[in-house]
Amino acid sequence: MTDPVTQNDSLPPNCLRLKRLGIETRQEFVIYMRADCPVCRAEGFTVHARVRVAANGNSIIASVHHVLDSLLGPDQASLSESAWLALAAQDGHAVTISHPRPLESLAYVRAKLYGRTLTPSQLTEIISDMVAGRYSDIELAAFVSGCAGQRLDPSEVLGLTRAMIEAGDRLDWDKPMIVDKHCVGGLPGNRTTPIVVPIVAANGLTIPKTSSRAITSPAGTADTMETMAPVDLDLGAMRRVVEQTGGCIVWGGAVHLSPADDMLIRVERALDIDSEGQLVASVLSKKVAAGSTHMVIDMPVGASAKVRSAEDAVRLTASLETVSAAFGLHTRVVVTDGRQPVGRGIGPALEAFDVLAVLRNEASAPADLRARAVELAGAVLELGGVTAPGGGCARATDTLDNGDAWAKFTQICEAQGGLREPPRSTHRLPVLALHAGRIGAIDNRKFAKVAKLAGAPAAPAAGADLHVRLGEEVTRGDPLFTIHAESPGELDYAAQYAAAHGDILVVFDE
Amino acid sequence: MTDPVTQNDSLPPNCLRLKRLGIETRQEFVIYMRADCPVCRAEGFTVHARVRVAANGNSIIASVHHVLDSLLGPDQASLSESAWLALAAQDGHAVTISHPRPLESLAYVRAKLYGRTLTPSQLTEIISDMVAGRYSDIELAAFVSGCAGQRLDPSEVLGLTRAMIEAGDRLDWDKPMIVDKHCVGGLPGNRTTPIVVPIVAANGLTIPKTSSRAITSPAGTADTMETMAPVDLDLGAMRRVVEQTGGCIVWGGAVHLSPADDMLIRVERALDIDSEGQLVASVLSKKVAAGSTHMVIDMPVGASAKVRSAEDAVRLTASLETVSAAFGLHTRVVVTDGRQPVGRGIGPALEAFDVLAVLRNEASAPADLRARAVELAGAVLELGGVTAPGGGCARATDTLDNGDAWAKFTQICEAQGGLREPPRSTHRLPVLALHAGRIGAIDNRKFAKVAKLAGAPAAPAAGADLHVRLGEEVTRGDPLFTIHAESPGELDYAAQYAAAHGDILVVFDE
Repeated sequence: MTDPVTQNDSLPPNCLRLKRLGIETRQEFVIYMRADCPVCRAEGFTVHARVRVAANGNSIIASVHHVLDSLLGPDQASLSESAWLALAAQDGHAVTISHPRPLESLAYVRAKLYGRTLTPSQLTEIISDMVAGRYSDIELAAFVSGCAGQRLDPSEVLGLTRAMIEAGDRLDWDKPMIVDKHCVGGLPGNRTTPIVVPIVAANGLTIPKTSSRAITSPAGTADTMETMAPVDLDLGAMRRVVEQTGGCIVWGGAVHLSPADDMLIRVERALDIDSEGQLVASVLSKKVAAGSTHMVIDMPVGASAKVRSAEDAVRLTASLETVSAAFGLHTRVVVTDGRQPVGRGIGPALEAFDVLAVLRNEASAPADLRARAVELAGAVLELGGVTAPGGGCARATDTLDNGDAWAKFTQICEAQGGLREPPRSTHRLPVLALHAGRIGAIDNRKFAKVAKLAGAPAAPAAGADLHVRLGEEVTRGDPLFTIHAESPGELDYAAQYAAAHGDILVVFDE
Repeated sequence: MTDPVTQNDSLPPNCLRLKRLGIETRQEFVIYMRADCPVCRAEGFTVHARVRVAANGNSIIASVHHVLDSLLGPDQASLSESAWLALAAQDGHAVTISHPRPLESLAYVRAKLYGRTLTPSQLTEIISDMVAGRYSDIELAAFVSGCAGQRLDPSEVLGLTRAMIEAGDRLDWDKPMIVDKHCVGGLPGNRTTPIVVPIVAANGLTIPKTSSRAITSPAGTADTMETMAPVDLDLGAMRRVVEQTGGCIVWGGAVHLSPADDMLIRVERALDIDSEGQLVASVLSKKVAAGSTHMVIDMPVGASAKVRSAEDAVRLTASLETVSAAFGLHTRVVVTDGRQPVGRGIGPALEAFDVLAVLRNEASAPADLRARAVELAGAVLELGGVTAPGGGCARATDTLDNGDAWAKFTQICEAQGGLREPPRSTHRLPVLALHAGRIGAIDNRKFAKVAKLAGAPAAPAAGADLHVRLGEEVTRGDPLFTIHAESPGELDYAAQYAAAHGDILVVFDE
């Protein structure tokens, strides 16, 4: 933490002295300098210029924001909080600011945008620069855009997966079999993981589950689980939980597996876009890095789910299986019904209440959520050799019925830091049927949007509770769903959207 | 400029009081708030959240940056300087911060990334939101990425051109014929505009030329012209210059023609990418908005120019002619040799010295630059009916030789605010031939990169001076080119790149 230049020395060329301003810009590092400071004058650094900032033997690439003379002296600079941390900076330290070496990997991003195919080594270079914090948000957005939809070919998907694995840590569990379960997402409320993990672990398999936070949905498994127990566990804590209980349900970002994934996901989330190849690389890089050997993938298919047609499901399954095989991972894809939300709640806490009802065998537990969890847990039990093929579902059902799954879930939550009750929303509004009829269609995407506008997942108690299922009859004035929010502004906002989009739930006249 | 909430009132919900911090972030508006302020707490606004900020009857969309308590009080917020200006903000004013209406046009950007074709009305909505400042940098980058290369089909190019015209001002010159000239770029040093405009204007045609600053090159025409005369003229000033002299050479961004173009160009520049469709829309939206009726387009073709093959030239010419015709613009494309830089200098001032030498009929004037300017001016004179077909070049040559072009140029510069001498670089380094031989190839892109690393165009005197032409013989130790910089750091940086890339100029052994 020592620095050769102390407060009393005169500054060498291209150096400024740090003053902490305390501005947080998150992933893209920012350096604040006066336009008339000696470094900007000498080097021509304008707003948004990308510069190399070195101090304490570390260096980062940052974007320039200019400040007027009220905030900084002519020989001073400041850093955004994340950059301050990355450089282990202290007030009064000298930093050296220079032109960064051009990033060769950006030429590959451009090549991709122009329609060319990237080699494994080009993808490795892109991901390595990205993880080192050398990409601006604009550059990250260009890469994500270049991979959108089906723009990555099979060799690129494999190359991207390998690059993402290599850019992070890898776990070694020193066991011959590590099972895992994943859902490709896109179906609101499909929160089977907190049910599958305890069923599987209660049957003696090892299932160290890392989950993501929401990408474009109102809640990710990590968001939901966080309303019931801590999920930000580091690697050591995660290992202790798995050793004690045989399983865990933690946020993957806290254990540095495939760190590029979180950077890509942040931009995908801002743009609300998906990429089929990035989806495969994202899922499999985390699973391979996590040391998984056997994995069941839940793939909901429906007109408004992430996978929209049987044709898409076949193509995605082939891609997942091919890339899995290249890493020695045994993967079984289970195609499920993605035509309507699962369970009742949409949003972190609302989904947690559904999960708890199933695990506690409550009479009110959503039958569809229970059935899906049993099907997926059964597939894991069969893949892991606990039962013969065909016997998995019966075993999973028993494990729920006899309370073993609930006991295992509480054991896992306590090991992760303590079981807790999910929060309740403070603002609610029911949305009513405008006429009598039968529920003909549910638009998952628009329904998820209502939950997001209500504040999910940032507001954990926010979201929506669905009161009807496809095919059910309703009369005029029946509540179709209830919007939950933690602030009146967000409740209003979701309500306005729901009022303007009468086709979220389509009620057919009888 | 009055505001209902004064310093002594208590603040209504979702309001904070402004304090100017003086941070400049340029195009993307930023609002600075404390994470623990009542608005962020109530609405869940995290870093990078997009929010609506309203004050003084205006509103903008801004990105949230959080600040610690040292900069702002709990009921205070600040704005980046451009946002401060856009809202006509004043210290102590109250601003209302709320969730913005979702931008429907972002769904079209996503559709484009997924490979779908956009309709004219979707493009109009995208460009209209963009010009209103509603797009974040990440969103702009996604749109630019979606249009990269040849990703826009003919109907989209036409739609984008119309959308860009409609989003800005349109000039009406009240004359039956307004001529214009444009170069599609990509050829270092091809600075014919400041020669063509005075030749054409001296022959009685009206040529109100608006030019861009550099996109991905070491200098744009506006950058070069600015070293000889002011170019940041507003519309009124531009009209007066054209009325007095028949022509002008000004920066297009100052007259609000096709404002979307400058936003797109900023991101294209950051990413260093081109889009064929955006190129057509960019050129033609500015020309149609500027009121042009007849235009000559210089299209250099060469392996390392922007247009790389005859095939590309044919496709781009067809696109330019088709879209021109839709707007009643008579366009003639002149395909020129793009295999090597034109003239000697690369960089704003260095190119200006070449231009001045040609206009002043100096013996040292680069013959290739003169010949190209004559060819293009000749084409304009023919298209404008000043001479019969085939007679344009002779007339252009006469206009240069008899001093009329130089006289017109000085007249235009004086009208724009005064002719001035371009600046000289302070740091220079010759790059020498390592062995004897014949100049076999010049890599325009790498040569341009040397000039950019040396500081061009931000540092106007920076760039590179080419001392040899294709086919010329050199002996060991002969200077191939000289790097010019305004700072030692930039000189070093360009020199290092030149040393590491021996193929910028390829010398064939004899």
